[in-house]
Amino acid sequence: MQVKSDSPRRLAKATADVAVVGSVAIDSLETPFGNAEDILGGSAVYFSLAASLFASVRLVGVVGSDFPEGYRSLLADRGVDIDGLETSATLPTFRWRGRYHQDPNQRDTLELSLGAFDGWTPQVPERARCAPFVFCANIHPAVQRQVLSAMRAPRFTLLDTIDHWIDSSRDELVAAMAEVDAVVLNDDEARRLAGDTNLLRAARAVRDLGPRTVVVKKGEHGLVMLRSSDADIEGTTSALPAYPVANVVDPTGAGDTFAGGMLGSLAESCGTDRSPEAEDLLRAVAYGTVLASFSVESFGTDRVAQLTREEVDERYRKFAEVVRVP
Amino acid sequence: MQVKSDSPRRLAKATADVAVVGSVAIDSLETPFGNAEDILGGSAVYFSLAASLFASVRLVGVVGSDFPEGYRSLLADRGVDIDGLETSATLPTFRWRGRYHQDPNQRDTLELSLGAFDGWTPQVPERARCAPFVFCANIHPAVQRQVLSAMRAPRFTLLDTIDHWIDSSRDELVAAMAEVDAVVLNDDEARRLAGDTNLLRAARAVRDLGPRTVVVKKGEHGLVMLRSSDADIEGTTSALPAYPVANVVDPTGAGDTFAGGMLGSLAESCGTDRSPEAEDLLRAVAYGTVLASFSVESFGTDRVAQLTREEVDERYRKFAEVVRVP
Repeated sequence: MQVKSDSPRRLAKATADVAVVGSVAIDSLETPFGNAEDILGGSAVYFSLAASLFASVRLVGVVGSDFPEGYRSLLADRGVDIDGLETSATLPTFRWRGRYHQDPNQRDTLELSLGAFDGWTPQVPERARCAPFVFCANIHPAVQRQVLSAMRAPRFTLLDTIDHWIDSSRDELVAAMAEVDAVVLNDDEARRLAGDTNLLRAARAVRDLGPRTVVVKKGEHGLVMLRSSDADIEGTTSALPAYPVANVVDPTGAGDTFAGGMLGSLAESCGTDRSPEAEDLLRAVAYGTVLASFSVESFGTDRVAQLTREEVDERYRKFAEVVRVP
Repeated sequence: MQVKSDSPRRLAKATADVAVVGSVAIDSLETPFGNAEDILGGSAVYFSLAASLFASVRLVGVVGSDFPEGYRSLLADRGVDIDGLETSATLPTFRWRGRYHQDPNQRDTLELSLGAFDGWTPQVPERARCAPFVFCANIHPAVQRQVLSAMRAPRFTLLDTIDHWIDSSRDELVAAMAEVDAVVLNDDEARRLAGDTNLLRAARAVRDLGPRTVVVKKGEHGLVMLRSSDADIEGTTSALPAYPVANVVDPTGAGDTFAGGMLGSLAESCGTDRSPEAEDLLRAVAYGTVLASFSVESFGTDRVAQLTREEVDERYRKFAEVVRVP
């Protein structure tokens, strides 16, 4: 892996590697603030750009031959290892077109074409298999399980999902959740999976499926995290607001950017010899919150792709002030 | 004013007095967890019970001759000064009947009878006029202004409202807001008043009407506070989640309980010789959050009326842990 000398991330030799499997896409967006055509998107991309501010990232995904060379360069320039980015000879890149309403929490999918992503079976390169920190973005839970089983010695595994898999592949999803250390999902998904409108009880129900840590993302309302351990079976609850942003331009990818900040921070904090503890997780979700707040301030990956670690740390300090209880 | 020797509040001699004007009501509730008939309610009641854990409270309100003696005792036993609670000879007490849905954020008003509260002009007793900390609960803004003008030397005035006044008496409400130090309102009300879906921009628009401090309540999602000062015209933003509660039984009065915890804490922190500063306000909204979390755990005022200051302080410390950013 090549890291440019002016790489914005901290080059701590002890930082552990992060592997991610998920979508790499070409998105088109219509928003009240303007439109964007054929921009870089996909869960693995948003995650990687955020996580690369903290750790070395190995991306596992698939695109078509239509995928622009410039988008590969953009990832590589951030130090993201794209050896695991397959190129289909026959099928095009995953494409999504969406429209956001005046209220940025409301969106419609106008077009969705899975292309090479449809029925894809990831080939996980050896270097990615050795990463101790692993993120399975919202792909089919059977594929998530296949990737998890390919890992050599995962130390912390994080899984995301969407309502589609909760409805269509519930058993497989529950099996995948039982195999990971942590799950991130949004509030509607947690309620749907648990069949409970109370978010804290819903988080407990998800925790009872297996993952020690459950992070429920609430978009502009922040998050709730439930952490359990052998010493704390009932679990400890954390809650954070979102970082207040006055100009939300494009919420696309905010959840994956959050996950990237979270897992990147964990890999940096824990390094190559430790598993995440309470303090690491608290820092990680705060960094995730900060990264997500940058992401929504411009179209697509624009802001996060340009972000420096100094900007991230400055906003982290501001965020600590925003939520301070004397 | 009589304070029982076993009063749960801290008897700090330097604590400033708090005055509140608002509704005193008899509520009936239907919830998925059970019903409650003819229980004590009203914004001034919820506020007073919470604030009385921190400071001496002078309640200004009106009831009918149907108002149960036991409810007067309940307030007096908590050290609330009810000399300002008028009794109408001809009209009954304000009554409200509501039904909550499975999602406790959804409720319907089934019956509403203003009774003595309809067209009421408060007579503010001298002792209440001298209170330096003043809360105008959500009554007609013209009445709020009348009460504000009756105050001798208010040091910190806090105003609440509801969407009804935003729609029906906007000019009068804007004039009232220009006369107070701080406004609390919920997120829908802030958006409606400002005509802006972004909550931070909406809070700024409310701040630009005059109040230096704007607290936007988001129910189960916590709050956003914008504080401005001569030295910080743009203002500083704080954001807190709600204290996570697994069993929300009855959200009635949570907003007024929040305001009571907030203003009570300010009166305690600032005492008789100081106006609220940033640190006081941060502590105050955290206490407000804690008080509101107790309120929703049981019907009506049941939990808050029994609460001890020790329980409040214990949950305050837990809350600081819940939102901790390392």
